[in-house]
Amino acid sequence: MEATSWIEDGMTLGLSGFTRAGDAKAVPLALVERAKSNPLKVNVYTGASLGSDVDKLMAEHGLVLKRLPFQADATMRKRINKGEMLFVDQHLSHTAELIRADILETIDYAIIEAISVTEDGLIIPTTSVGNSPIFVEKAENVIIELNTAHPSELAGVHDIYELGKQGERSWVPLTKGNDRIGTPGIPVDLNKIKGVVITDLPDSPSTIVPPDDETQKIADHLIEFLRKEIESGRLTERLAPLQSGIGSVANAVLHGLLVSEFSDLEIYSEVLQDAVFDLIDAGKVKFASGCSITLSEEKANQVYSNFDKYRDQLVLRPQEISNLPEIIRRLGLIAINTALEVDIYGNVNSTHVLGTNMMNGIGGSGDFARNARLSIFVTKSIAKDGKISSIVPFVSHVDHTEHDVDVIVTEQGYVDLRGLAPRERAPLIIEKLAHPMYKQQLLDYYQEALANGGQTPHNLEKAFSFHLNYAKNGTMLEKMLQMA
Amino acid sequence: MEATSWIEDGMTLGLSGFTRAGDAKAVPLALVERAKSNPLKVNVYTGASLGSDVDKLMAEHGLVLKRLPFQADATMRKRINKGEMLFVDQHLSHTAELIRADILETIDYAIIEAISVTEDGLIIPTTSVGNSPIFVEKAENVIIELNTAHPSELAGVHDIYELGKQGERSWVPLTKGNDRIGTPGIPVDLNKIKGVVITDLPDSPSTIVPPDDETQKIADHLIEFLRKEIESGRLTERLAPLQSGIGSVANAVLHGLLVSEFSDLEIYSEVLQDAVFDLIDAGKVKFASGCSITLSEEKANQVYSNFDKYRDQLVLRPQEISNLPEIIRRLGLIAINTALEVDIYGNVNSTHVLGTNMMNGIGGSGDFARNARLSIFVTKSIAKDGKISSIVPFVSHVDHTEHDVDVIVTEQGYVDLRGLAPRERAPLIIEKLAHPMYKQQLLDYYQEALANGGQTPHNLEKAFSFHLNYAKNGTMLEKMLQMA
Repeated sequence: MEATSWIEDGMTLGLSGFTRAGDAKAVPLALVERAKSNPLKVNVYTGASLGSDVDKLMAEHGLVLKRLPFQADATMRKRINKGEMLFVDQHLSHTAELIRADILETIDYAIIEAISVTEDGLIIPTTSVGNSPIFVEKAENVIIELNTAHPSELAGVHDIYELGKQGERSWVPLTKGNDRIGTPGIPVDLNKIKGVVITDLPDSPSTIVPPDDETQKIADHLIEFLRKEIESGRLTERLAPLQSGIGSVANAVLHGLLVSEFSDLEIYSEVLQDAVFDLIDAGKVKFASGCSITLSEEKANQVYSNFDKYRDQLVLRPQEISNLPEIIRRLGLIAINTALEVDIYGNVNSTHVLGTNMMNGIGGSGDFARNARLSIFVTKSIAKDGKISSIVPFVSHVDHTEHDVDVIVTEQGYVDLRGLAPRERAPLIIEKLAHPMYKQQLLDYYQEALANGGQTPHNLEKAFSFHLNYAKNGTMLEKMLQMA
Repeated sequence: MEATSWIEDGMTLGLSGFTRAGDAKAVPLALVERAKSNPLKVNVYTGASLGSDVDKLMAEHGLVLKRLPFQADATMRKRINKGEMLFVDQHLSHTAELIRADILETIDYAIIEAISVTEDGLIIPTTSVGNSPIFVEKAENVIIELNTAHPSELAGVHDIYELGKQGERSWVPLTKGNDRIGTPGIPVDLNKIKGVVITDLPDSPSTIVPPDDETQKIADHLIEFLRKEIESGRLTERLAPLQSGIGSVANAVLHGLLVSEFSDLEIYSEVLQDAVFDLIDAGKVKFASGCSITLSEEKANQVYSNFDKYRDQLVLRPQEISNLPEIIRRLGLIAINTALEVDIYGNVNSTHVLGTNMMNGIGGSGDFARNARLSIFVTKSIAKDGKISSIVPFVSHVDHTEHDVDVIVTEQGYVDLRGLAPRERAPLIIEKLAHPMYKQQLLDYYQEALANGGQTPHNLEKAFSFHLNYAKNGTMLEKMLQMA
């Protein structure tokens, strides 16, 4: 492919794509082919994770110098953690600001998947918007991947709003999730378009893990909490616009809503997954705003064969709008995100295994958790058959501080931490969230820490004892307990 | 005082006051007197810290059940850290949202210092606005402290804007720091006013620490960084609206601007300190928006004897407006806040000594750091004559994650972390920020951690070795180095 010959060693590419949806595919895959005989290294910026094994292949062939702001590929993860490539983990609403302000590398090529480009200079994106608008605006050159695998009916679903420079911009005139405030495509200077590649590669389907016993229990506890909020008069049965991270737990929670009494719901989220469309089909959700549509193969066939039915209930926005603090706080979202581990004071690690190895990235969880009306984190209380406790004395990496975590839910129960001091939080978290096999060990830590006093009692000598136990013995359980 | 007899055990009080300015004084002090013979415990909510030793006296007499969202008193701090009273440390923009949504305890009495109450139901506050508007709106009863010690000329400086409920509110129509968008006083249902107390107790003066060699060097490095930003075209000599935390380092930085080439500056901050008025006097600052005015005795005398000169250049807002993510991001603030310690990856601890004992609280630093155009943290590289290194392998408490920290400055130099991966950050932070006496020790940790691999290499066994050394030996320096 000719386009790949334009790309030189050391360049920075801005690729469309957000959670396997609407990602540039043909050019990156051709670039991987080219790299086999003619090695090069480039910086790769995207919206979020890519599909079609692009991240995997780019990593395998050592194509990437620096990757940001998110990835979710096992091979790339390995190379990142070996220090063989650089990964900059960013709040998903921040990347566009950094590009707009000329803080990151200049983007040499924006490579954008599209349904079409209009005569008056609008790129009509496909199944995601991501960071494409700022890539196109700031890039010196644009390559379009016209992908015929997407239904042309997607046109009209996008709403592209450009914030403008900090200090010169106005408010974002959006007060309801379904407000349309921008253009139906990404404005482009047609002279910047250096090439158009025609492809028909479909998006990679999402890999949905069906609810299991534990995720079902988490969903049940969360719905129980929401019911209490309604009883207290703080919410109605329409709840509030919902944001939900990706993954099996979040998916189970949304499915839990399907059989609940809640109705007239709205979604204001990043990724619109299968469950969102199930909720629309069931008449539970009247509107969904997101930044990408990521579906299983089955659901995609159903949705796209009948897209007219959905289009008026959907809008896709740039990720700095779907994730903008201004809007998240104004609308008062209920944000549901997944934790890797939480500590006894409610700090959350969503990214680093044992404090060191990156899983995927913080994604949009920080944008939502900090600014939502209700910031809810979900996790199973144990992992690896109990060898790992998701409740630990001190999280080995902090992505969300206690100030940004309102409610935590495990299959054991939920805690409402709002307005509680650390010394009120710890006993509750241990009692309600921890797996029974770890309760005593956590209580022992807390009791010993209390002897040190403090606003947030800790015993730094043992703060990571759970993690160190695991590294040494393959389980966080203390020896004595294992033998008992 | 009769008013104190209305206050019952277990009630929740909402007191005006933000960083020793505009705080209710007479009623709380009378309540302390009453408690000597007739003990009671109440929840105390404020804007931020109080003056007139109110927090000290309330703590000494065991008056406080739960205190939020900020305090800065040595006696209260001690009781908090002993677990004798509860303290809920909150982002200063969050408290009002929690009260508005009926999540915290109902406020029984709002006790608000005022210059006057108008016939049509506006309370004209004094030197701070803080959380007073939401206290007045949600409280069942209001007590006014009419304080004649404040100049009546303060009237007109306030701009009270009520956000309204999440999900029902619109955008905040503010695009410049000096926009006026609200009313000149706090709307009150006059029937709720249960009493008016006349006082003439002045605000406690701020205790300004003059710049020393180290804070001067920090200011110099920071200004050097700002100059580089101008050279790169990312800023102009007008910079961008400035937010500055309180404390001697921040004060030195603002004084550094006084003798710089920067001009036509704007302040959009929480507390307006002496340095802000010095900058106005010097013609460097054309406008300052804040939520309180906290001055030394000398500066207060000068400013208030001539307030007409300043009034058109000032506005005082509720803290949820001064600290609102929506506005901070829109205006693109340059935020300068103080760190207690930072780690080799750029995570910041601003609150907890050795991870356990509370100093003051996170205050507004999180509101600003997350949303600013430039999030700058300043700290001296060592404390206690070098027994403590402010640069550590792993901060003992995380208030701000690496994602929210753009630039760090010590007297040794500055680092610009924007767009850098953790493995790029650590060597820079150690090289540019750490005190020479700790560089090798930090490098040794990092080298050892690198052997573990990872996106953020750590050796959890030694992550808190600096802190544990200090607890054991009274210094973070390793034994070997001490002996050398």
